[in-house]
Amino acid sequence: MSLARTVVGYTGYIDCLPSEVLAGKEVIATGMTGEVARCERAVESALAGFDTAVVSSGDAGVYGMAGLVLEILEKRGLLTRIEFEVIPGIPAVCAAAALLGAPLTHDFAVISLSDLLTPWEVIVKRIEAAAAADFVIALYNPRSKRRSGQLAQALGIVRRARGAAVGLVRQAFREGQKVGVCRLDAFDPEAVDMLSLVIVGNSMTRIAGDRMLTPRGYAEKYDL
Amino acid sequence: MSLARTVVGYTGYIDCLPSEVLAGKEVIATGMTGEVARCERAVESALAGFDTAVVSSGDAGVYGMAGLVLEILEKRGLLTRIEFEVIPGIPAVCAAAALLGAPLTHDFAVISLSDLLTPWEVIVKRIEAAAAADFVIALYNPRSKRRSGQLAQALGIVRRARGAAVGLVRQAFREGQKVGVCRLDAFDPEAVDMLSLVIVGNSMTRIAGDRMLTPRGYAEKYDL
Repeated sequence: MSLARTVVGYTGYIDCLPSEVLAGKEVIATGMTGEVARCERAVESALAGFDTAVVSSGDAGVYGMAGLVLEILEKRGLLTRIEFEVIPGIPAVCAAAALLGAPLTHDFAVISLSDLLTPWEVIVKRIEAAAAADFVIALYNPRSKRRSGQLAQALGIVRRARGAAVGLVRQAFREGQKVGVCRLDAFDPEAVDMLSLVIVGNSMTRIAGDRMLTPRGYAEKYDL
Repeated sequence: MSLARTVVGYTGYIDCLPSEVLAGKEVIATGMTGEVARCERAVESALAGFDTAVVSSGDAGVYGMAGLVLEILEKRGLLTRIEFEVIPGIPAVCAAAALLGAPLTHDFAVISLSDLLTPWEVIVKRIEAAAAADFVIALYNPRSKRRSGQLAQALGIVRRARGAAVGLVRQAFREGQKVGVCRLDAFDPEAVDMLSLVIVGNSMTRIAGDRMLTPRGYAEKYDL
């Protein structure tokens, strides 16, 4: 990004950037649900010949803007004309997992509960499949004011398949960080908002001290 | 890690570290399948009062050593005695996805095909569930000399559920990097080894130029 002449992003993420990173650059910042307009302006900037960076939080490929930029380049027939590169980052699921201990040491499914772009029935089907096949489940966009009941419904599906430990991380590695681990039946969905990420353990996940631990299976094979 | 007095890790990962990072530190490097002995030595070192870092490649929480260290601390009753912190990293799935384009823009499942610590029947059940619920699927440890047939079997399960694009990344961001995208029915499992990661798209994933694109759903809702 240091080489970019133009930096494009959601206002909330642009505000997270140190001011020296943005010094001397054109900044295009827009609000929530402005994703399409924002990415189109980024493509316009690149078309005009300027090195342009689109910023996401976490990893730009996980529910981030990498896909939308690529889709716009494809739709407009610009795939060979504009050079496009995705720089990987630490996804929110890994930041949250690190704070919780080691919940992702076995197979996991990442599911967004936002039904803005995905029908709720598809989301439910994925939660059911992940619960039945005993995946650890990471829930992005777990709850908003508009969607206050869906998290409880999602956790109800998992609870029918198994008892489990559950971890909640809010604002991972940011101001206002909160981290908590408890049993699924003691979990209060009301404590969750859009700045949170929820990780539900698989049937082997246990609480170790104040951490969440999904064993990989060494204890069954070796003497620890 | 810069503050650690002792650095512990698999020989192959220790070799990736710049020598200045290791200068003046005790280094404990052991080979493959030496995970338990390695992590126990790390715990011994911490018990002796030395700041100790255990290194993994990618993110230490995703099939990495974070879980095993925490498990050993738990088994030995050291959870409150030894301070334990996990530092998140860029997981291999995100590094590979970035090189492939944007395959992870929708819900995805991460599955290891290694049956060293997990029964193959459990792995198959997870592949079937992820395929049926139309997850993008990232396959870790896709193929070794000993396990040469399982990747073909896994991809066969997905193929019965859907046609799909598939991406193969070998040695992401390392020397010898290889990146390729093709249709699932044209994919050759023989090209895959243990240094590779395979990402199978969902039913919406398409090939855009030489990239892999899983649309988030903007095109259905907005005019791109």
